[in-house]
Amino acid sequence: MNSHDGATEKSDADETAAAHRVVIIGGGFGGLTAARTLAGEKGIDVTLVDKRNFHLFQPLLYQVATGALSPRDVASPLREVLRRNKNTRVLLGEVSDIDVQARIVVLRDSSGDAAAQNQVPYDTLIVATGLVSNYFGRDDWEPLAPGLKSIEDATEVRARLLMAFENAERTTDPAMRRAMLTFVVVGAGATGVEMAGAITEIAADTLPIEFRSIAREKARVLLLDAGPRVLAAFHEKLSAAAERDLRGMGVEVRTSTLVREVDEGGVVVERAAAPGGDAAASADGRERIDAGLVVWAAGVRGTPLVASLSAKTGAPLTRQGTVTVNEDVTLPGHPEIFVIGDAAHFAHDGALPLPGVAQVAIQQGRYAARVVASRLAGQNLPAFHYEDRGSMATIGRAKAVADLGWMQMTGFVAWLAWLFVHLLFLVGYENRVLVLTQWAWYYVWRRRSARLITSRQALETP
Amino acid sequence: MNSHDGATEKSDADETAAAHRVVIIGGGFGGLTAARTLAGEKGIDVTLVDKRNFHLFQPLLYQVATGALSPRDVASPLREVLRRNKNTRVLLGEVSDIDVQARIVVLRDSSGDAAAQNQVPYDTLIVATGLVSNYFGRDDWEPLAPGLKSIEDATEVRARLLMAFENAERTTDPAMRRAMLTFVVVGAGATGVEMAGAITEIAADTLPIEFRSIAREKARVLLLDAGPRVLAAFHEKLSAAAERDLRGMGVEVRTSTLVREVDEGGVVVERAAAPGGDAAASADGRERIDAGLVVWAAGVRGTPLVASLSAKTGAPLTRQGTVTVNEDVTLPGHPEIFVIGDAAHFAHDGALPLPGVAQVAIQQGRYAARVVASRLAGQNLPAFHYEDRGSMATIGRAKAVADLGWMQMTGFVAWLAWLFVHLLFLVGYENRVLVLTQWAWYYVWRRRSARLITSRQALETP
Repeated sequence: MNSHDGATEKSDADETAAAHRVVIIGGGFGGLTAARTLAGEKGIDVTLVDKRNFHLFQPLLYQVATGALSPRDVASPLREVLRRNKNTRVLLGEVSDIDVQARIVVLRDSSGDAAAQNQVPYDTLIVATGLVSNYFGRDDWEPLAPGLKSIEDATEVRARLLMAFENAERTTDPAMRRAMLTFVVVGAGATGVEMAGAITEIAADTLPIEFRSIAREKARVLLLDAGPRVLAAFHEKLSAAAERDLRGMGVEVRTSTLVREVDEGGVVVERAAAPGGDAAASADGRERIDAGLVVWAAGVRGTPLVASLSAKTGAPLTRQGTVTVNEDVTLPGHPEIFVIGDAAHFAHDGALPLPGVAQVAIQQGRYAARVVASRLAGQNLPAFHYEDRGSMATIGRAKAVADLGWMQMTGFVAWLAWLFVHLLFLVGYENRVLVLTQWAWYYVWRRRSARLITSRQALETP
Repeated sequence: MNSHDGATEKSDADETAAAHRVVIIGGGFGGLTAARTLAGEKGIDVTLVDKRNFHLFQPLLYQVATGALSPRDVASPLREVLRRNKNTRVLLGEVSDIDVQARIVVLRDSSGDAAAQNQVPYDTLIVATGLVSNYFGRDDWEPLAPGLKSIEDATEVRARLLMAFENAERTTDPAMRRAMLTFVVVGAGATGVEMAGAITEIAADTLPIEFRSIAREKARVLLLDAGPRVLAAFHEKLSAAAERDLRGMGVEVRTSTLVREVDEGGVVVERAAAPGGDAAASADGRERIDAGLVVWAAGVRGTPLVASLSAKTGAPLTRQGTVTVNEDVTLPGHPEIFVIGDAAHFAHDGALPLPGVAQVAIQQGRYAARVVASRLAGQNLPAFHYEDRGSMATIGRAKAVADLGWMQMTGFVAWLAWLFVHLLFLVGYENRVLVLTQWAWYYVWRRRSARLITSRQALETP
């Protein structure tokens, strides 16, 4: 990487030298909100860098994985979303490095084009890179148990889910058939709960009508979590309600259960030792579960870029790989670098650090943008304050839980609230129309039609 | 492959021994129509084998490649389409061989499951395997210039098309920028014409609004064909109208032009020598065209399975790799084997062989099913007769040509007809609603939102 002094850097900006250059890394909830908030600001040039060309609505990714929605429904092209923001430029590229001294974002040279713009200088940097799946040191499990963080994850899970049904239909061996109709979801947070519920529904709706050999079979869905209850981030009352609903649908909920091994044929699990107990004593308590699909929803962690940023600035990195930010979501000693959303560890406002949910990212993105604009106007903003609007998870058709803090909802009312909120925050009017159409269709007919096996990998080694 | 004698084969069928077993290979227009026509037939068991789990509406595949529709919109899960057909079983698998003596379809063992059902005995076989892209001996061109036959083809073309725009935006080299904004479509049949029109539209709609560096650039779209006119299968009047419309949109139409070389950076083309002229004399007339995307719509050919069927039965194979069928679309000496749709060469009804269009496949699928049912009832049907309902191609927004034989239409009326017919033949009510919604949206807003770069390959080597 070249090192630039201030003079060289300034001359790069040519006719826009007067404008304050804001570079945003990541077009998720946080980054996109920051860009939109800065849209009308005079004297500010925004560059949004993302390695993908679309904003992904991650909360509905599990619906792509279970064939209810298709990828385009939960994705909006960043250029289209930001097309009217005349001060905003979108750059498709993967960030390989951040030169915090020279204030330059360096892009990986992937196109083989010697003239490609690979250095993006900034006056203010907003890092919104989110999180990736965390296999807790067992990255070799990733190909065996895909997570649910990207479109490709979702289509891969969808292909494996559907191939398991197909393999069950084609085999003549009852043991193989049972294994293929066994689905393991690791991690009982919102994503895991939603996944387990949706797999149960698709099996119940589809098997008896669409299959001949396995029409009378019942799928077995296991939802595992190392902790003592599902939806640990929710009110205990809602955890209990969700577990009751899941069990009512036929999901085997196993809390305090650890995954010890993952292989191509399934998982090995073990009851967690009681606190203070001897873990080794339970070694005989291991159980093998043959499964047609293992989905990993057990954890997330920060990106390597955030770790390198921590190393360069001295900002503390958490065990989860997120970086600890100041009260104004900047890094210590670097007021020009904001880290927002899932990538940031913010623990000023209350006792607990803020959760990794869309609302935190959205509010921090808006806040960071306002701080930038205020500074240029010579004003100061108070510290970031998170306004908790609650969290929700859907369990199945007309079943959900919603925790608004001051109020807990379950059942149909919570599901309606979930539906409304997700449509509201979905980016793009056309996407809302398409999603609503498909949800209505599914509600009436119980048919999930986005069931395409399209992963090349799945085709070659099903 | 095991060889089976008649007795063994019969005993395989156990309790359904009395039923006549029809096996259909391929769930395209022909195979699906055959299965649906046989739905209510008593005494007939149908097994539909396909290597994909969905029916693909190929005529709209170019709209997926250009971001107007998403894969699910043009695909319908075969199990869902056939869910009410109680006498029909769907089997996901790739046919590796057909034992015409033992009357067994052999599936490739891809799941690693020793107990998987890999042998499917038949009493009647309907082969409807369609065609694949034909590179005329230059299969090494396939990765450089993808065709448009599968969902994966379409998402690959879409990724390359969008990456070309992105690379043009990111480069600082004007020559590279021009190359990236040059798009070459090889083959001016319906698919090529539709592709060229759609690329021109997406560039015109998108560049000035969504890009900053290349906002004032104009994309260059070339439509090449070895023959003397576009849409050679249509009435000459319509060829002329289509060419006029394409040129009006800015497409460079080059007929009588041969592609001599394809590489990662573009193509080398040459004017076809005049009939009787010396081809070598024009060697200096070669021209190199640097391009950001090359799409192959130049030709199609039969599958290896059809070639092996020809070798086994002695039915003549055409140069295109299709098999010549009898007047009742069966193979000579094998009244139990039907070959229908694109895979069949049928030249009885008129002077010219039937074209490779959906209507031929649909009508032959219905006919084959009726012949099977009639035979069981001890009746005979007259030879297959194709009822030509015409063909159509769309050139752009509100522009199309339609050839009904007795009447030719162009412009808005033809486009409305095109729209109506395609919605009518699209499989699945939900798909129709979704497609209509998106077409209406596009018609009003000129926005194609299914513009996701999702191909892993494109991500790694853009």
